[in-house]
Amino acid sequence: MAKFVTIGERIHCISPVIKEAMATRNPEPILKRAKEQIAAGATYIDVNIGPAESDGEDLMKWAVQLIQSECNNIPLALDTANQKAIEAGISVYNRTNGKPIVNSADAGDRISNINLAADNDAIVIALLSKDGIPKDNDERMIYCQEMLEMWMMLGQDPTDIWFDPLFLVIKGMQEKQMDVLQAIKDIADMGLNTTGGLSNVSNGMPKALRPIVDSNMLAMAMMCGFSSAIVNPCDTRLMETVKTCDIIKNEYLFADSYLEM
Amino acid sequence: MAKFVTIGERIHCISPVIKEAMATRNPEPILKRAKEQIAAGATYIDVNIGPAESDGEDLMKWAVQLIQSECNNIPLALDTANQKAIEAGISVYNRTNGKPIVNSADAGDRISNINLAADNDAIVIALLSKDGIPKDNDERMIYCQEMLEMWMMLGQDPTDIWFDPLFLVIKGMQEKQMDVLQAIKDIADMGLNTTGGLSNVSNGMPKALRPIVDSNMLAMAMMCGFSSAIVNPCDTRLMETVKTCDIIKNEYLFADSYLEM
Repeated sequence: MAKFVTIGERIHCISPVIKEAMATRNPEPILKRAKEQIAAGATYIDVNIGPAESDGEDLMKWAVQLIQSECNNIPLALDTANQKAIEAGISVYNRTNGKPIVNSADAGDRISNINLAADNDAIVIALLSKDGIPKDNDERMIYCQEMLEMWMMLGQDPTDIWFDPLFLVIKGMQEKQMDVLQAIKDIADMGLNTTGGLSNVSNGMPKALRPIVDSNMLAMAMMCGFSSAIVNPCDTRLMETVKTCDIIKNEYLFADSYLEM
Repeated sequence: MAKFVTIGERIHCISPVIKEAMATRNPEPILKRAKEQIAAGATYIDVNIGPAESDGEDLMKWAVQLIQSECNNIPLALDTANQKAIEAGISVYNRTNGKPIVNSADAGDRISNINLAADNDAIVIALLSKDGIPKDNDERMIYCQEMLEMWMMLGQDPTDIWFDPLFLVIKGMQEKQMDVLQAIKDIADMGLNTTGGLSNVSNGMPKALRPIVDSNMLAMAMMCGFSSAIVNPCDTRLMETVKTCDIIKNEYLFADSYLEM
């Protein structure tokens, strides 16, 4: 058991501001979001540059050096389909505060990201899917076993592969939510780490509902042994849940001021 | 599995307003709190008249009839150390919307409340303690087995004895919280019902923290199969958790307006 790890998701090229800043190599909007997320308590910062087919290597290097140099070498998750860009990012990455995370491998087309992470002494997020949504937990566990075995055959530490059960949207897949939580429990009970894009559960809901749904899903997941999540750390209610469940799990000593820490 | 059951705790003689209303048989403050709790979504209303040694029978009868007649026969939990008062309350209780709850038996001095509940076809809350705080879950499970066996020997339905694991205060017993949650899971996994005075976990904390701590503890407990709780249903954040976890557990069909239902 250990304190819950949050991976801040707000540096993402889907945001027009970030996309523009990445295209023009404008540091300010990127540093602003990095610092906001760190101030809100993010453990890692995700850097999503999208497919980045043309200048991915240069862009990822620039982003990694920019954020780490200005933010006390905060550890990063390197998030792109461009493998050369991930390797380029790792080549300039400072490990003082933690290994880089490769985001992400899966049991299908992206399985070679497991080799990439192993070759570069990185953590890897391993999505428990092959071609779309896994139909049940048997399928999730087959992928978990496949990727874990591959990772360990490469001589890697089993706690450095973080399994993502694939959170599903409640609007449309309400009856599947307990399966996802059970998958987290089954994996955590093996002593393995888990992560995932939590906010997918509240996709399409009215904006006011999303922090309520996300935070309660997170508390339930933390009860199952969920060890990290890719989240918006500026969502106050969500971060209150992270800190409070860590208190309940006795990962962190209670003080009246614990939410401010 | 079934929708989570809330037992509203706000009609309690510890409140000066309620104590005075009970002493003077003044309906207004009692009905006000009953109606507020029902509007906020309480399934049951707890009626705590304290030790009520002198006029407990008359007082409980008055309170039961008052609340049920004015609130569409809302089901009630009868909460007092005075057994005759509980029986008097049951003698005038209307079962249209559910059996009365006897609050509560334990494995020590109050074990005869199990007989009382059986004799009166009531639900009984069975506290998993004998003389103080159980030292671990082995002790909790011994009491659970003892009281369950007694209840079933009396020919009662095992789902009509609701086991209370005894929530412990985080300030002082932080390292015991996961034991309580594990006890809930162990009992729920046997197909049995659970309940408890949830807000004990946040006792002594700053007022602003309490809904945050209580609601996250509740989400974790609901993940473990917790089936009901004695709560303040006017705590909005807590009731949001009740409804949201019911949605995640697929006990209730999601709609954008689910919090208003």
